Amino acid sequence: MSNLTPDSAGWTFYTAPGTCAQAVHIALHEAQATFRLVKLDFTQQQQQSPEYLALNPKGRVPALATPQGVLTEVPALLLFIAQTHPQAGLAPLDDAFALARLNELSAYLASTVHVAHAHKRRGARWADDAAAIEAMKAKVPQTMTACAQQLEAWLAATAEQGPYVLGARYSVADAYLFTITGWLEGDGVDVQAFPRLRAHHALIAQRPATRRALEEAGG
Amino acid sequence: MSNLTPDSAGWTFYTAPGTCAQAVHIALHEAQATFRLVKLDFTQQQQQSPEYLALNPKGRVPALATPQGVLTEVPALLLFIAQTHPQAGLAPLDDAFALARLNELSAYLASTVHVAHAHKRRGARWADDAAAIEAMKAKVPQTMTACAQQLEAWLAATAEQGPYVLGARYSVADAYLFTITGWLEGDGVDVQAFPRLRAHHALIAQRPATRRALEEAGG
Repeated sequence: MSNLTPDSAGWTFYTAPGTCAQAVHIALHEAQATFRLVKLDFTQQQQQSPEYLALNPKGRVPALATPQGVLTEVPALLLFIAQTHPQAGLAPLDDAFALARLNELSAYLASTVHVAHAHKRRGARWADDAAAIEAMKAKVPQTMTACAQQLEAWLAATAEQGPYVLGARYSVADAYLFTITGWLEGDGVDVQAFPRLRAHHALIAQRPATRRALEEAGG
Repeated sequence: MSNLTPDSAGWTFYTAPGTCAQAVHIALHEAQATFRLVKLDFTQQQQQSPEYLALNPKGRVPALATPQGVLTEVPALLLFIAQTHPQAGLAPLDDAFALARLNELSAYLASTVHVAHAHKRRGARWADDAAAIEAMKAKVPQTMTACAQQLEAWLAATAEQGPYVLGARYSVADAYLFTITGWLEGDGVDVQAFPRLRAHHALIAQRPATRRALEEAGG
């Protein structure tokens, strides 16, 4: 039985360093969830191995194998972890508007910000031509700066209530924002221009669950 | 007071024909929600007008103005509508795994399928060079076909339980899948190769809420 085989009774979490799966890894520790960690080796294209594709046909991370089946996609996993560990208070499950705000930020991070970032190294997803892939890469500092402006404005709007994405209380969306803002500097964004994003990143970085996830995932 | 000004007491829904906002529009009717409809004129760049940007700084649709604030992003709005109209039974709110499946599909549609589609007409979001934008357009039939294969496999996996995305019961994710599969043919996908997606599209097309939303939105 290979290391990739999911446990039959518990949760098995598949991640890789430097990916958006970090957000889910942090959330698992915030929830004090019990799970086995599997780190895929992207340099060996392990995410495209037949064994992993049988678990997650998309060939990406994160994936969470549970006794009920395999779940993927960061926004879905974040809410799933919050809902299955209500005692951890990781999402405003009974406040539809606040939960919509959390999901709104998750969806923006997944479908706009992560996508803008992916045009730097994953341009081959959307064009075959080498010059086109270079042209995509060239625009990343501009698109990621525009995203950072939206995110800075989000934090400005909630600042009166508190330092977190939803204001006073930490939520799984903070783990997601932390993960994505960790990419800004490498994407050519002048992070000095975004003091709220920097303060938020520093605040989330020092939480025990964040530190544990980063330590386990490695570089 | 302009037509764009949101109602202070109720919901105001901002949409535009041919966009992903259609999924939310359908969900509003499935929920029998009360709302005022505002159709933005994209040919006049109304989504970039100062008045609309004050409501939604992203300059996109959908947006839903509520007395508590403006919400955006399809996955967030779909769940918000389901949660605020529980009697309509539009999402498995008390079943964390089933809800995660719904959110997983929503996230995939938003961050992979919609993004692949957007490279046909919105390539300027990710590159400035005209040749690069053409190269992106050229790959759309291939990327959207790969997405359709994933979606067809999803429906095959749930087919035993029923015809909907989650199996036996209709959910807001069906409105979303319907909206996105409506783009496949125009994106150069051979839809004959995807009988389950075609059957699902036909099934959702005939629902009264779907027909009403399409009629109201116009072409």
